[in-house]
Amino acid sequence: MKIGIVGYGNLGKGVEAAIKACSDMELVGVFTRRDPASVQIRTQGVPVFSYDSMFNMKDEIDVMVLCGGSATDLPEMTPELAEHFHVVDSFDTHANIPQHFDNVDAMAKKGGNIAIISVGWDPGMFSVNRVYANAILPVGSDYTFWGTGVSQGHSDAIRRIEGVADARQYTVPVPAAVERVLAGENPELTTREKHTRECYVVAKEGADLAKIEDTIKTMPNYFADYDTTVTFISQAEMDEKHSGIPHGGNVIRSGLTGWDNETKQTIEYKLTLESNPEFTANVLIACARAGYRMASRGDVGCKTIFDIAPGDMSQTSAAELRATML
Amino acid sequence: MKIGIVGYGNLGKGVEAAIKACSDMELVGVFTRRDPASVQIRTQGVPVFSYDSMFNMKDEIDVMVLCGGSATDLPEMTPELAEHFHVVDSFDTHANIPQHFDNVDAMAKKGGNIAIISVGWDPGMFSVNRVYANAILPVGSDYTFWGTGVSQGHSDAIRRIEGVADARQYTVPVPAAVERVLAGENPELTTREKHTRECYVVAKEGADLAKIEDTIKTMPNYFADYDTTVTFISQAEMDEKHSGIPHGGNVIRSGLTGWDNETKQTIEYKLTLESNPEFTANVLIACARAGYRMASRGDVGCKTIFDIAPGDMSQTSAAELRATML
Repeated sequence: MKIGIVGYGNLGKGVEAAIKACSDMELVGVFTRRDPASVQIRTQGVPVFSYDSMFNMKDEIDVMVLCGGSATDLPEMTPELAEHFHVVDSFDTHANIPQHFDNVDAMAKKGGNIAIISVGWDPGMFSVNRVYANAILPVGSDYTFWGTGVSQGHSDAIRRIEGVADARQYTVPVPAAVERVLAGENPELTTREKHTRECYVVAKEGADLAKIEDTIKTMPNYFADYDTTVTFISQAEMDEKHSGIPHGGNVIRSGLTGWDNETKQTIEYKLTLESNPEFTANVLIACARAGYRMASRGDVGCKTIFDIAPGDMSQTSAAELRATML
Repeated sequence: MKIGIVGYGNLGKGVEAAIKACSDMELVGVFTRRDPASVQIRTQGVPVFSYDSMFNMKDEIDVMVLCGGSATDLPEMTPELAEHFHVVDSFDTHANIPQHFDNVDAMAKKGGNIAIISVGWDPGMFSVNRVYANAILPVGSDYTFWGTGVSQGHSDAIRRIEGVADARQYTVPVPAAVERVLAGENPELTTREKHTRECYVVAKEGADLAKIEDTIKTMPNYFADYDTTVTFISQAEMDEKHSGIPHGGNVIRSGLTGWDNETKQTIEYKLTLESNPEFTANVLIACARAGYRMASRGDVGCKTIFDIAPGDMSQTSAAELRATML
């Protein structure tokens, strides 16, 4: 399988590393809107191309992995490229997924391609676990906890406050809430009861720390509904201890079976990720494989993780999977 | 969807309850090799038929759910019935799955039917989680822990010992081993380090308790390789405290990502089941739905959980799933 990467930020770098770990894949090139000469990639002998040059390379690429952002890049890029290539993206603005799906589906069908959208961990593996768990346990309740992990959006919101030089925000699930859910108590949990927010902040010299802390803790939507802690640290400590991008969480379905719904059954899917973008990259690559196989069987249009037979994501043959993993 | 159940033990009863919880399904009948008049089912107005009468009811049944045992029933029954019906089974003799697949595939194709085999939790949901996790994290190690749960095979082995009136064996994962795996230590674990076996035994009057205990603990394959505890209890206590059929466990993949495999990523899927057969029944029913949909698109032959797009298992439409669960 010949893969192209569009965009070379943290996610694109993760995809490059993911391809290296797959013996059935080869990186053909990285495509960028920046000056290609300014982008250094790690795979020896693989070129960096300008974005527009990809349209002359249709025969050289089996699947394009789109590593742009969900806010502005992917809503335009995925439909545009789905007309010309099989593509996969990690579009993660949950509320806009149906619209994105429709836009991409029309263009993918126009071009006779497969386009897999919104893969990663949430949306992605968390989503597919919600679907499995609901299909198996139709009577029950869903719970999703996120963290411990870095929220980029919340970190950015803190950085925009006057007097803040740098910030990192961790979303942390409340252990007692997770325990109650796993015990099958089926609790109704408020926002505050599910997660806490831990903020590490580097203040500019002379900044009003009390005012920064208050601005964070009272920020609507982002922090006001949570128990939030603010810790001021030095830039050196920030760089040393908070440079990673960990994340994860768990999806739990607490269900009932039996003639009178008398039996408790609990399904939990849990991710503990040292690197959020590298994990997302690996899911993208497994879905790129699946998309290529689906296309080779004549399937076209927009797909999500719900439409993918899991065996299609594996490097291993169907017979070998049955013999070794079933 | 019109469903038939073949066999009415614990699993068949679970399937009956599972159908009751699904608004898109209807139970047409239970088929048994016993005298139909001797079998009382719980769904009002639904008849019990003799096994052979099903062959006159092909037009009345969309999917047959086969609830026989893996040792002797399913190896014969699933191929035989796959020629006449779309079927789903929970064949769980892991080593014989490839042979069972081939036998069933030939007959399903002959009859133009879909036959989904080996669904439940292991094989089944545990298997599909192994496939997902390996596809996403190609560099890594797999761990499966079973329990705390009742092992029917091990309980039966104890019951065959002279002087034993009743027995129940629980398989229990060793917490320290699970913790080491979840911490990303990638330990190599012996059989003894992974699970312990707890045996509750009712002895016949005058039986030699020391001899029973020794026979259990030294039994090859079943107990000799494990730290095994034997507790003698009364039949009353057995009936009161050990009548359930709980099980579960977790499938963990401890993987590495990044250019130099420097990043730890952990995927865990965990089931905590108060009733093993009722959970298996619910998976069978979700797969029956998927099989019916696959057949309606013209697909034929033997399938496993690896071949099923998760969305096909859900009662919810694809558009609704994208809007609510992605």
